Amino acid sequence: MTFPNRITIVGCGLMGGSLALALRPHLQHLTLVDQNPANLSLAESLADVTTGDFYTGVAQAEMIILATPVRVILHLLEQLPQARPQGCFVLDLGSTKQAIAGVMASLPAQFQAIGAHPMCGKTQTGFAAATPDLYRGRTFVLCPTPRTSAASLAHAQQIITWLNAQQIILSPADHDAIVAATSHLPYLVAASLMGTVAHAAATQEHLYPVSAAGLRDTTRLAASDPAMMLDILLTNRPAVLARLDELMAGLAEIRETLREGDAAALQQWLEHRQRDRRQYEARLEG
Amino acid sequence: MTFPNRITIVGCGLMGGSLALALRPHLQHLTLVDQNPANLSLAESLADVTTGDFYTGVAQAEMIILATPVRVILHLLEQLPQARPQGCFVLDLGSTKQAIAGVMASLPAQFQAIGAHPMCGKTQTGFAAATPDLYRGRTFVLCPTPRTSAASLAHAQQIITWLNAQQIILSPADHDAIVAATSHLPYLVAASLMGTVAHAAATQEHLYPVSAAGLRDTTRLAASDPAMMLDILLTNRPAVLARLDELMAGLAEIRETLREGDAAALQQWLEHRQRDRRQYEARLEG
Repeated sequence: MTFPNRITIVGCGLMGGSLALALRPHLQHLTLVDQNPANLSLAESLADVTTGDFYTGVAQAEMIILATPVRVILHLLEQLPQARPQGCFVLDLGSTKQAIAGVMASLPAQFQAIGAHPMCGKTQTGFAAATPDLYRGRTFVLCPTPRTSAASLAHAQQIITWLNAQQIILSPADHDAIVAATSHLPYLVAASLMGTVAHAAATQEHLYPVSAAGLRDTTRLAASDPAMMLDILLTNRPAVLARLDELMAGLAEIRETLREGDAAALQQWLEHRQRDRRQYEARLEG
Repeated sequence: MTFPNRITIVGCGLMGGSLALALRPHLQHLTLVDQNPANLSLAESLADVTTGDFYTGVAQAEMIILATPVRVILHLLEQLPQARPQGCFVLDLGSTKQAIAGVMASLPAQFQAIGAHPMCGKTQTGFAAATPDLYRGRTFVLCPTPRTSAASLAHAQQIITWLNAQQIILSPADHDAIVAATSHLPYLVAASLMGTVAHAAATQEHLYPVSAAGLRDTTRLAASDPAMMLDILLTNRPAVLARLDELMAGLAEIRETLREGDAAALQQWLEHRQRDRRQYEARLEG
């Protein structure tokens, strides 16, 4: 299957920019689209064409890769039939997949579309943080849709090979249920913790100096890009709410154990959570 | 003020072991006490005397440094009047300070005691993880008690100087209120999150592979030593419960915002949490 010649990447932030850096040696003609002039000017030397206008950028594209926040992807997909009436391959890197799969399914037949989500978290954003090895060794989820042809799947897999990433194929629903637990819930927990601690720090000047790596690591995700997180949370509400309810029930339970001062139950809980973490570490290393 | 000649460190794990490694060049005579033969044999070459018996280890000590979990410290302090009837300087490194300060206050007058808590988190434990620079540049909290003489304060400050640590003096109550927010609450949150995610992973094999650095960092504290955490939580219950209630109220609020799909309120919350984290980072770097 010959890889398409004319590729357009929409969104030149961390994800799109890193993709452009990693794929550039393999691409014949690369167009980069971004409404942020700072990203575009940093990425300019990489591209054959740069533009701030989506319609201009995709007019001749044989493959369009959408690397923007989820709700922007939804909006761009809806414009595609007008912007590129002849059709083309479409790949998106959005952080949630069900809403996007729904819009992909309604694209005209001349579009061959597949959803993707590479697991490479970083709290820095923008092309300035992009690096060609961002995807190396990382899990790269593919979510086929009714609009996914054999050719579109093969092209996505070619990209994964070029990136040295690890493919996992999931349904959009499974993907969203998983990342609600592994990504969106950790974000909400980290951000809520940051809010509680910041509130306490406002009236206690020694609070931050009397902290260590634990607070720093546990709150790191609170620095995530609000625009990206807003779209993620709004497009994955049922799954996130379900996980959040489980977490809150767990917190209420351990709160009660602590309030009662039940040392035996508390110790068992502490040991089980350490065991959970060790099993998780073993899976990461395995 | 001449530093005492005969020092006994009780507990040769990460904290006590690192202290022994860092202080050894400055000490005339060092006794190490640990009930774990593995720690003692690793630390043997450092010490003039090693023993598994507390009474033997402290019989001739001019200064005793207690580096065990909090409830063990409480137990050892209660034995001190029998174990070392002539009295001596006492310093402890326990993670909570109010309960220990209470017992210190009831020691006979021949004991000059001061509480301390160095902020150097690490989830590895035991002498095998000890390093002489564990305390370098870290905040080292001192909590004077009614049993704290000028000499005992000066000796503690000499130790901080040798360790290249940064002194902060706090009351035991202020200390415990602060670490409830900066250490104990982050632990409970990380461990609860780990429990929720592990529960989901039990029925979804792709869950851990579809995770990234966010989950890893946010759950790191779940690996903490259960024995140490049990003592911490049981000796700081009111402060931990108060912070936990604030966190749970915050989670309930953001849950409701998400359930309503209130994009404007959600965005504001996301931006505020990012701002909180940036202010915290600025304090850490400043």
